[in-house]
Amino acid sequence: MVAQETQQAKQFSIVLIGSGNVAHHLCATAIMGRFKILQIFSRNIEHAQALASTINCEYTNQYSNINPNADLYIIAAADDAIADIASSLPSVKAVVCHTAGSVAIDVLQKHFENCGVLYPLQSFSKYRNDTFSTAPLLIEANNNESLNVLNDFAGCLSPIIHKINSETRMAIHVAAVFANNFSNHMASIAYLLMKDKNANFDILKPLMQETFQKIMESNPIEAQTGPAVRNDQNILNKHEELLQSYPNFKDIYKKISESIFTLNELHKNGRI
Amino acid sequence: MVAQETQQAKQFSIVLIGSGNVAHHLCATAIMGRFKILQIFSRNIEHAQALASTINCEYTNQYSNINPNADLYIIAAADDAIADIASSLPSVKAVVCHTAGSVAIDVLQKHFENCGVLYPLQSFSKYRNDTFSTAPLLIEANNNESLNVLNDFAGCLSPIIHKINSETRMAIHVAAVFANNFSNHMASIAYLLMKDKNANFDILKPLMQETFQKIMESNPIEAQTGPAVRNDQNILNKHEELLQSYPNFKDIYKKISESIFTLNELHKNGRI
Repeated sequence: MVAQETQQAKQFSIVLIGSGNVAHHLCATAIMGRFKILQIFSRNIEHAQALASTINCEYTNQYSNINPNADLYIIAAADDAIADIASSLPSVKAVVCHTAGSVAIDVLQKHFENCGVLYPLQSFSKYRNDTFSTAPLLIEANNNESLNVLNDFAGCLSPIIHKINSETRMAIHVAAVFANNFSNHMASIAYLLMKDKNANFDILKPLMQETFQKIMESNPIEAQTGPAVRNDQNILNKHEELLQSYPNFKDIYKKISESIFTLNELHKNGRI
Repeated sequence: MVAQETQQAKQFSIVLIGSGNVAHHLCATAIMGRFKILQIFSRNIEHAQALASTINCEYTNQYSNINPNADLYIIAAADDAIADIASSLPSVKAVVCHTAGSVAIDVLQKHFENCGVLYPLQSFSKYRNDTFSTAPLLIEANNNESLNVLNDFAGCLSPIIHKINSETRMAIHVAAVFANNFSNHMASIAYLLMKDKNANFDILKPLMQETFQKIMESNPIEAQTGPAVRNDQNILNKHEELLQSYPNFKDIYKKISESIFTLNELHKNGRI
């Protein structure tokens, strides 16, 4: 955890490159006055204009028009666009950072003297309010000066800041995919199975609340329950039979059940 | 939803067959005086005695000693033990029910005039307090009289009671395995990946909170985020590479990512 100041001495001025969910939420936070977005760049001028209109700032789709006087350039773009953007941006002295979990700092280091990463570990959607304030921000920089800039700026967004290198950040991103995207898919499968029997998804919610609470409070490996961890072949077979008409779900059921059993054995034997 | 009375006219007297987690929690609830457990049966006399001592009731491991005067006989035993127990119990006129999600009512109907199922959709562990009060109870019976008995008794445990037949109950049980046991395993994998990089699992918790909140509030199929639903092959490949040393997790990563993409396509095309 990097030390933070809650009172910022100066107001950061930002050029924001991108118009997706992270860019949208950065604008929503800028409205609160903690920092100023000077300009929004997007390759799609309509997207740039639409987002810029929400905070009344300049916008462009030309790299040559990018404002050279910002304190920080934030590339909040799709992962596979970052390298292209980095090679097209004018060379600036100020810190250039991206916001991607699974893109290493190297992609910026080739082009900029001062650069870094500010990865908000949060699932942003355009239609929810400011969620930066509870998001852990994982920051990394190519030198101490850039790290200080990113740390100070991060403090405008969230009180939870961790200094994490690219390798660890990528592992955390994979972990987040399991803990969040994949958990959500498990709920999606449950939703479908319930729907197909005209059963209300709400019936599952108290149990989901309990499961979630347990994960928050303890080691999930120790909290594991269900037929797979008990190796209850009788139920496992019955469930696979019930999933006959859902071959993908049946396959996932088998794989995860096996993995639960294996992990539990390793845990019991003190190997994890 | 079956109509319930919050005030019970009579106090049910119960014979409890089993000494596992559900039996444990039934005893913990009985202490509050809403119903009376006359006797506990377990094939393991020490288990029967230990549980009986918590509520100061009779206990036995002999079927022939089972108290014939209870209002309700509750078989709270492992799924694959229920058939055996049912065929060994003395024939009684009172309602005999089991508490298993994936065992049909048929297993009791062969032996008893009045029978049913009372399945608490909750994950019980011995070391947590009364969780019946928030558990949906799925009840089923072989006739109206038995249904009324089970409904009245269920009202002593929880205000959430649903009348559900065996086929639907089993589908709900499978759905619960996905939504809970498998979600927990996704968190376990995340936990391990973090641990192996000396990263604190707590970093993931705000995002898990957000994901959970979304699942509670909306259709999880529509709330799906992450690289799989965007079909971001670049990140998917990178993540699979990062999971090289975890072949099981890599396999699960691929399967679930494919399933997320497929489900999203079906949803977009209005087929689910």
